[in-house]
Amino acid sequence: MNVILDLCVVPLGVGVSISRYVAACQAVLTEAGLSPNLHAYGTIVEGEWDPVFAAIKKCHETIHRMGAPRISTTIKLGTRTDRAQTAESKVRSVQELLGKTPPAKKA
Amino acid sequence: MNVILDLCVVPLGVGVSISRYVAACQAVLTEAGLSPNLHAYGTIVEGEWDPVFAAIKKCHETIHRMGAPRISTTIKLGTRTDRAQTAESKVRSVQELLGKTPPAKKA
Amino acid sequence: MNVILDLCVVPLGVGVSISRYVAACQAVLTEAGLSPNLHAYGTIVEGEWDPVFAAIKKCHETIHRMGAPRISTTIKLGTRTDRAQTAESKVRSVQELLGKTPPAKKA
Amino acid sequence: MNVILDLCVVPLGVGVSISRYVAACQAVLTEAGLSPNLHAYGTIVEGEWDPVFAAIKKCHETIHRMGAPRISTTIKLGTRTDRAQTAESKVRSVQELLGKTPPAKKA
Repeated sequence: MNVILDLCVVPLGVGVSISRYVAACQAVLTEAGLSPNLHAYGTIVEGEWDPVFAAIKKCHETIHRMGAPRISTTIKLGTRTDRAQTAESKVRSVQELLGKTPPAKKA
Repeated sequence: MNVILDLCVVPLGVGVSISRYVAACQAVLTEAGLSPNLHAYGTIVEGEWDPVFAAIKKCHETIHRMGAPRISTTIKLGTRTDRAQTAESKVRSVQELLGKTPPAKKA
Repeated sequence: MNVILDLCVVPLGVGVSISRYVAACQAVLTEAGLSPNLHAYGTIVEGEWDPVFAAIKKCHETIHRMGAPRISTTIKLGTRTDRAQTAESKVRSVQELLGKTPPAKKA
Repeated sequence: MNVILDLCVVPLGVGVSISRYVAACQAVLTEAGLSPNLHAYGTIVEGEWDPVFAAIKKCHETIHRMGAPRISTTIKLGTRTDRAQTAESKVRSVQELLGKTPPAKKA
């Protein structure tokens, strides 16, 4: 079962600046081969359910090990059985309706 | 690693009434021994990371098998290493500050 | 337009214990006449769109004034035009499918 | 009070393909002068609290008028009083820690 998800980790008890924890999470996801796509309020991850959630668990373990005593995370996730879909195609289908060409990925 | 989470599954492509899918998900969580606590916009689940997320995966599989071609789920989840905490104690600590006695579990 | 929503405020930069900020937010919502219903990962609010969102804005202002320099909030919200629905009826329709009597409100 | 938020609208009762509703919401946000930044599981919006939430309300009204009887929306939102921050600077601060140059906007 393939999943497309939006992951947003918020460590608590480490002050207001959390970017180094978010960066560590990006590194964990990248090492897991997941090509996370960072945006301003989370990161997009796609792949098979088990490796994706194993990587998210590792993000929590890593951030705790860095010293954050508490983490509050929000995940939005989608699965579908009717057809294959990628994170890129989701964006493209909306942009086409808006008459915009999506940003080419190293055209 | 213990987790307290709020799970909200939204099946798409099955019309506006989704309660039977939510009920099926409650049954999956209960069968997994997780004592889900339903509220008006999701259900609270707590337990060890792996069995909790295995049950959430099974919820998606079950809802797809019931005929929903697409599911959009939102999860809020918390982990902490500084001290043990339960879903019940989270609510109680706020209610005590508000001067309210929390609802007793078997009055 | 009526809305049923789940509100979860997470103040950052104030340490790991956030219950007094959550309690202040409950007080703001109650003073706004909204009868918030606290659960372990947020609070359920229902009412007309404008007063509900005015109260949420006031929650942010209040928590900042209490000293939290940063707040990360998650809201799940539902509107529908096909029929009237309450937070209580949402829970009841699932519980009836599960063969459970919902908790009576004034037993 | 400035807000950076992630908005994800999910219309129910209109089948599995929801891109035309998401596109309509993008148009509403753009007409409101908000420069939404679409990603694979939502769109990033930033601005003053009141116009941002007025536009979100208009998104719901528009999607209902297009025929969707029910909408389930998820919003993650951040406010801060310690310093000014933009959606772009949030992404950049993480990318700099990862040793990546952020994508230049009109290089």
